[in-house]
Amino acid sequence: MKKDEDFKAIFYPRSIAIVGVPRGFKPGKVFLQGLLDQGYEGKIFPVNPGAEFIDGLRAYSSLKEIPGEIDLMIILVPASEVLSIFDECGPKGVKAAVIYSSGFAEGGEKEGRRREGELLQIARRMNLRIIGPNCMGIYHPQNKMAFFPGMSKVSGKVGMISQSGSLAILLSRLAEPRGVHFSKIISSGNESDLNSCDFLEYLGEDPETHVIGAYVEGIKKGPAFLRALRTASAKKPVILWKAGRTSGGSRAAFSHTGSLAGSREAWKALEKQAGVLTARNLEEFLDFLLVFYYLPGKAGKRLAILSGPGGPAVSAADACEEFGLQMAKLQEETRSRLKKILPRTGTSVNNPVDLGLASVFEVDLYGKAAECVGLDPGVDALVFQGQGATPELDIQYANLLIEAKRKIPKPFLAVAVGGPNLATESGKALVKAGIPVYPSAERALWAYANLYHHGQRKG
Amino acid sequence: MKKDEDFKAIFYPRSIAIVGVPRGFKPGKVFLQGLLDQGYEGKIFPVNPGAEFIDGLRAYSSLKEIPGEIDLMIILVPASEVLSIFDECGPKGVKAAVIYSSGFAEGGEKEGRRREGELLQIARRMNLRIIGPNCMGIYHPQNKMAFFPGMSKVSGKVGMISQSGSLAILLSRLAEPRGVHFSKIISSGNESDLNSCDFLEYLGEDPETHVIGAYVEGIKKGPAFLRALRTASAKKPVILWKAGRTSGGSRAAFSHTGSLAGSREAWKALEKQAGVLTARNLEEFLDFLLVFYYLPGKAGKRLAILSGPGGPAVSAADACEEFGLQMAKLQEETRSRLKKILPRTGTSVNNPVDLGLASVFEVDLYGKAAECVGLDPGVDALVFQGQGATPELDIQYANLLIEAKRKIPKPFLAVAVGGPNLATESGKALVKAGIPVYPSAERALWAYANLYHHGQRKG
Repeated sequence: MKKDEDFKAIFYPRSIAIVGVPRGFKPGKVFLQGLLDQGYEGKIFPVNPGAEFIDGLRAYSSLKEIPGEIDLMIILVPASEVLSIFDECGPKGVKAAVIYSSGFAEGGEKEGRRREGELLQIARRMNLRIIGPNCMGIYHPQNKMAFFPGMSKVSGKVGMISQSGSLAILLSRLAEPRGVHFSKIISSGNESDLNSCDFLEYLGEDPETHVIGAYVEGIKKGPAFLRALRTASAKKPVILWKAGRTSGGSRAAFSHTGSLAGSREAWKALEKQAGVLTARNLEEFLDFLLVFYYLPGKAGKRLAILSGPGGPAVSAADACEEFGLQMAKLQEETRSRLKKILPRTGTSVNNPVDLGLASVFEVDLYGKAAECVGLDPGVDALVFQGQGATPELDIQYANLLIEAKRKIPKPFLAVAVGGPNLATESGKALVKAGIPVYPSAERALWAYANLYHHGQRKG
Repeated sequence: MKKDEDFKAIFYPRSIAIVGVPRGFKPGKVFLQGLLDQGYEGKIFPVNPGAEFIDGLRAYSSLKEIPGEIDLMIILVPASEVLSIFDECGPKGVKAAVIYSSGFAEGGEKEGRRREGELLQIARRMNLRIIGPNCMGIYHPQNKMAFFPGMSKVSGKVGMISQSGSLAILLSRLAEPRGVHFSKIISSGNESDLNSCDFLEYLGEDPETHVIGAYVEGIKKGPAFLRALRTASAKKPVILWKAGRTSGGSRAAFSHTGSLAGSREAWKALEKQAGVLTARNLEEFLDFLLVFYYLPGKAGKRLAILSGPGGPAVSAADACEEFGLQMAKLQEETRSRLKKILPRTGTSVNNPVDLGLASVFEVDLYGKAAECVGLDPGVDALVFQGQGATPELDIQYANLLIEAKRKIPKPFLAVAVGGPNLATESGKALVKAGIPVYPSAERALWAYANLYHHGQRKG
């Protein structure tokens, strides 16, 4: 198999045929909309025997009527008609097919399995690579490809495999405001031909990809997948979200030894065996991607928490210890410098450093305290939980943190309680400056703790 | 102590003096701004010897110049001047004082403790109740009182004690869009006089309060607090967020036996002893309040999950089992009725019910499936994870759920992945109709699981 060329056709196709694209506002339409929305610059050939034009594009009644070569085709016709499409594509030089159609092995019925086997046989004979069936295919914003309208247009560093297409759509929407952007997402479906191992290998080598994410429901070849994870994670951080932990089916499927069942212990074993980090749900997955995205390199465990009006800092200190991190012990010198900066009452110069209510008005307290605490050699990273009393003060608060960050070469994490949506302008500014923003101190610390412990395991 | 009258002056004051309110935009100003922002209808008397008017209100140079009686005073002057204010308030009939000033026992220094002791002595002699010192005081939207501008103006069913004032401010802002509204929040600070036990007792009797929340950092009298929790929780659900679980100080303070230290086991013991539900952080606290707010009464453990495009449903099913709930087994009749409703491929009539990609276009599938599954006697509650492809379809989706809910007398929970902010209109409509909305299925299920297990413990 000449994989490089296959992947070139899949991720950088010069032309795409969409077979079975509907005329009206129906599910299959999203593939065409996705490409148009991104502004795909190659040729798009809609194929539908009942239409002359679809969404302003010339439509073709069959593949063979399309002028010129086709690199990639996306197939939306019912399962029973997919094979007849294959008959037509030989002369057109089609190199790969994304098969959205369901009704194959995923149903667990004999007819579907037979059909999928036949599909694979023919594809092999024709030298055609298959993604799917029962998948959404390729999201690759750098090449302006998406499988749904409204997916982020910003290209980034996370390469992702998702056995769920809808999850990929969700992720691209949720990740963008948090500053997590994707190099590629592959929705791989039933994985009859190209599978998670192939894509892991590809993403491991892909220079655009710095962090790998994987959402996995079931794995056919456990040991091969474990090997692929290990190889990839030796090169880049790999965050794995394995769903279906409790259902009997996928429990058994994961590994033929049965040792990687569903328990918490098995999870931990996987982390160790494969060198990956596991996430349990969407929020955690995104939180982990974020911390690896913005804080590459080895993390230290001694944290300082700087917080405005008091309450949440206590809870943050709890989380710090509970997650196996340490509340940094500030040097006497740091504390006496803080004393000079902060108001005398309603504040604390111990860690968590409480800047008091005045800080929401005098936001320069944050900048000063950040530099002061950041210079303490006993502090590895700083978590900020603050805000300004008005939108103007709030953006000033963000700018002061950003300025302090330039002088202090240590990780900064910011907490915008209630979600980045509540603190739009300041949150955006922080994210743009490479300071990850979390909706709560606990989530920030949990992500950081996982970054730290992962680093320790990798040695 | 004639507590009823005291509390009447505290929660329903006819006049409020704010002593030491600054002229300019400084921290203490928020108390005046809070009252003006809510539209407080009693008399407000700003006291500041250096001003004739503050924010359009006539200011007084001292308490004794104020014409008429004063029910409640809010004291913002430095700690060393607080006692001299007390000297003046006798003739004005002041019944209670919120003392914001810090510099008392909270610093741990001898002078502060002495000062607080003296304060209490004088107050007792004068028949004056104290809230604080080192607190924000009373938020009571029904009476248009708040201690910070921008706090929610909507009155509701959660009565809350918070040892952190800033947390109370945050909560009132974060809870409103999720449909959780407060009857009262008391920021109680050092609790030199009135303490958490008094307020718990009051909220337990308060007819406006249906659910009690408490954010607690340290408790002086452990056994009394335990008793107060037990009494309150016999009447209403009590959600307790105890911060400072890991720091030595508050660990010891919680109970003189030391048995309620910081471990997970101790938490569970507290839940059992006091009949309360404990939350570990802000998100969890709010999630728990939400589920008790909208789903009062006994909860069953057999859940059905109905979901649009597949991915997240698998993860939701995991969570369901991991949290000690059950995925309901749908009856044969339910499944065959679902088969008639749903498209043949890309869907599942087993629980989790997968409505397929088509459902984001044909949102009436949600309404039909909801009724069908809701009628199954083996289903205790339904979780919906769906959306419409366009804003119009999305609101239609919400309306269909609301319509189905009217016919099915079982709890409905909705998931708007990425937070209610992403699905504004439909999310708002759902909340308004009494369907709690969670930003992820895991969080919805975790809250519901706690509702269920709490109900089981209460018997």
